[in-house]
Amino acid sequence: MLAELITIGDELLIGQVINTNASYIGEQLIQYGYRLDRVTTVGDEKDKIIKAIDKAVKDYDLIFITGGLGPTHDDITKKVLCDYFNTELIMDNEVLEHVKSIAKKWKNRLKLNEEQAMIPKNCRVLFNNAGTAPGMHFIIDNKNIFVTPGVPHEMKYIFEYHILPLLKSKQDGFIHTKTFLIAGLGESALFDKLENVTEITKLVEVAFLPSPRGVRLRIISKGSDEKEVLEKLQYSEKFIRDRASEYIYGEGSIEIEELIAGILTEKKLKISTAESCTGGFLSNRITNIPGSSVYFDRGVITYSNESKNELLNIPMDIITANGAVSEIVAKMMAEKVREISGSDIGLSTTGIAGPSGGTPEKPVGTIWIGYSDKNKSYAKQFYLGDNRLVFKERATQNALIILQKELKDF
Amino acid sequence: MLAELITIGDELLIGQVINTNASYIGEQLIQYGYRLDRVTTVGDEKDKIIKAIDKAVKDYDLIFITGGLGPTHDDITKKVLCDYFNTELIMDNEVLEHVKSIAKKWKNRLKLNEEQAMIPKNCRVLFNNAGTAPGMHFIIDNKNIFVTPGVPHEMKYIFEYHILPLLKSKQDGFIHTKTFLIAGLGESALFDKLENVTEITKLVEVAFLPSPRGVRLRIISKGSDEKEVLEKLQYSEKFIRDRASEYIYGEGSIEIEELIAGILTEKKLKISTAESCTGGFLSNRITNIPGSSVYFDRGVITYSNESKNELLNIPMDIITANGAVSEIVAKMMAEKVREISGSDIGLSTTGIAGPSGGTPEKPVGTIWIGYSDKNKSYAKQFYLGDNRLVFKERATQNALIILQKELKDF
Repeated sequence: MLAELITIGDELLIGQVINTNASYIGEQLIQYGYRLDRVTTVGDEKDKIIKAIDKAVKDYDLIFITGGLGPTHDDITKKVLCDYFNTELIMDNEVLEHVKSIAKKWKNRLKLNEEQAMIPKNCRVLFNNAGTAPGMHFIIDNKNIFVTPGVPHEMKYIFEYHILPLLKSKQDGFIHTKTFLIAGLGESALFDKLENVTEITKLVEVAFLPSPRGVRLRIISKGSDEKEVLEKLQYSEKFIRDRASEYIYGEGSIEIEELIAGILTEKKLKISTAESCTGGFLSNRITNIPGSSVYFDRGVITYSNESKNELLNIPMDIITANGAVSEIVAKMMAEKVREISGSDIGLSTTGIAGPSGGTPEKPVGTIWIGYSDKNKSYAKQFYLGDNRLVFKERATQNALIILQKELKDF
Repeated sequence: MLAELITIGDELLIGQVINTNASYIGEQLIQYGYRLDRVTTVGDEKDKIIKAIDKAVKDYDLIFITGGLGPTHDDITKKVLCDYFNTELIMDNEVLEHVKSIAKKWKNRLKLNEEQAMIPKNCRVLFNNAGTAPGMHFIIDNKNIFVTPGVPHEMKYIFEYHILPLLKSKQDGFIHTKTFLIAGLGESALFDKLENVTEITKLVEVAFLPSPRGVRLRIISKGSDEKEVLEKLQYSEKFIRDRASEYIYGEGSIEIEELIAGILTEKKLKISTAESCTGGFLSNRITNIPGSSVYFDRGVITYSNESKNELLNIPMDIITANGAVSEIVAKMMAEKVREISGSDIGLSTTGIAGPSGGTPEKPVGTIWIGYSDKNKSYAKQFYLGDNRLVFKERATQNALIILQKELKDF
C-alpha cells in the first residue's frame, strides 16, 4: 500500500533543519509492507497545509503528517486539521495530566503547554511519552491519517509505540526482513560478489544502502504463507552468506563499536590505541560507548615523528629508513602501545589522509593498520581514497573490523 | 519570489538517503531573496514525476528539480523532461568531451557515460565540473526550471557556479546577509540576551539556526536602496555585537577548527591535547584540517587514572584526593602535555560523559577544560547535559573556543 508523508514547518524550507523524518518513516514503512510514494514539505501556513492535505487525500489511503504541533503561535497544524475535518478542539484529560506532570519539571511554561492537551474531537489520541504534544489518528472515509510532532525522537516514539504495531496488525500476509552490515567493499563490488543476484531478487526485495561506514544490505520477504516467507528469507540469507560472509560484520542497525564493546567486556580484555592519520577518530568511536572505560585504557595520537619516538619508543632510524607510513611502523605502534599500557590488545593507524603528502610510491589514501596481542603482531595495508574526512571514516571502520575479527579467536 | 523543489529518487523514499539537498537549496535561496515554498519528493517513475512537475508549473514561476540524471536505467528524469516539454535528446559535444576525459580515469564505463552528454534540445547546459551529468536550465512560458543531479556535491557545484549567480543578477533590489557563529549559550538564552530583538526584526529578517556546535544567527537585509539595506545590516550587526559579542566566534559557514588552524599556522605555534571524557574527539576535529600536522604535535587520551599518571606524570595522590574530574587534574593535564611535547599550548578535558559515573557533587555532564601556555594555566568548569554524544560535541566545541580566545592574545 502506497502512502504520502506531509512534513510541515518553515524550518524545513529555510535550511534550518534537515528532514530526517522522511528517511526514517520511509525505511520503517517498507519493512511492514507499505511504501512511501510521495513526500511533500510545506511551511506553517494554513492554505498551504490544506492544499497539501487535500492532494494527499485525493491520491492516497494512508497519510502521515508531521510537524506544527508545538506550543508556539506558528504551530497551527491542529487548528488546520479541525477546519479541514470540520471538527473542534476539546480537552483530553489524560493528556492534560501528562502535560502537567512534565510542566512541573519546567518553569513558567504551564499555560502554553495546557493547549497541548486540546485535541480534535474526531481523532484517537496517540499518547506521547517522549514529549508534550500527542500524536493523532484520524479515520475519514476509510483513509488512515496519522499526525505526529516533527521533533524526531517524539515522532519516532509515536511511530514505534502506536503506528507501527497498528500497521503490522493490518498488513496483508507476512513480512520478514533482515539487514546485513557489510564493510570492506563498496556497493558495486558487493553487487559483483553476489554474482547472480537475480536468483534472490525474484524471491525477496533486495536494497543496497551505502554509507561511509559500509553497505547495509536489506532483504524483505513477503507473502501470504508464513512458512514460505521464512524459507525465502533463509534461502536468501544463505545465498548472501555463501558469497560475502567474510565482509558481514553484523546484523540490524548496531554500530561495530557496540559489538566490540560486548566482546571486550565479556572476555575482560583491555585495549589501547596508537593513531596517526585517524587523529583520534578511532579512540573517539571506541569511547562513544557508555562504559567503555572498562575496556579502553588509553590512546595516543602520535602525529609527529618525534611523538612516535617519545611516546612509543619507536627508534628514529626505523622511522627515517621506512617512513612513518610503513608496515613496520604501524606494527610497532600497535605493539608498543599494548606493552606500555599493559593492555591485551594494541591497535594502530598510520597513513596519508591528504590532500597533500602523497608520493608516487605512497599516494594519498595509503594506510597501514596495525594489530598486536600477546601472540601476534601485524599490519595490513589499504587504499582509502583522497577525501580526508571519508579517509578517516574508512580507516577507523577498517581498524574496528580487524579488531572484531581478532576478538572472535580470543 | 516563491519556488518549488522537486527531488526525484526512490532512494529518498525507502530510507536509503536523507534529503540534505532541500535544506541546502532552501538556505541558499533565502539569501538571494527567493524562498522555497514547497518540496515534493517522488520516486523514479514517469507518471509520478510528470504529475509533480505539472503541479509545480501551475503553482510556481521558479522550479528546481534534482535527481535521476545518472547513467543507470532507473535514472529517467531527462527522458521525462523531453516528453513533458515535447522535445528530444541531442548530443552536446562540449559535455561529451568532458565525459570522455573523466571516463579515461575509470574503466569500462565509457558507453554508459556517453549517454550523459545527451541533452534536451530546448535547454541551456549548466556545465558540471564535479561529475559527468550536466545541469539544465529551461525557460518555458516565462517560468525558470533548473535541473541538477541529486548527488549533493554535484548539485552544489551547479548551484554555486551557474544558478546562484543568475538568481543574483535577476533579483529585485538589494540583499545583504550576515551569519554570526555563536557558541556557549543555547537558542533561547541567546534570544534573551538580545533583549528587544523586535528592534532589529522590524528592519531585517532574523533566523536562529541551532546545532550541537552552537547557534548560527542569520540576518538578511533587503530593499530597493542599497545604502539603506547596508545601514540596516550594520545597525543590526552592532545591535547583536553589543549584546552577545563574547559568544560570537566567527562569521559565515566556517568551522572553529579552521579559524584556529589559520592562527596557529600564522603565529607558528604548536599545540598538544590531553583528553579524558572527549575520548579523542578534540584531536579528531583539530586533525580534520588539511595541514594540521604543522601545528598539532600529539595527543593523549588518558582514560584510566593509571594512564593520567603514566603518560602525564600526574601524581596518583592528587588524582585520588581530588578525583580525576577536578580543576587541578584538568589544569595539570594541560600543563603536562604541553611540557612533555614541547608544544606552545596544552589543552585538556576531563569530565563525566555518562550515562553512569555521576554523583550528587559531580553529576553526569560535569566537565573541566584545561588550558596551558608558558604564561598561564587554568581550568574552567561547565555542565553540558546528560547525552553522551552531545556532551562530547559540546565539550570539544567549548575547548576549541577557549583555545581561540587565548590565541587572540598570543
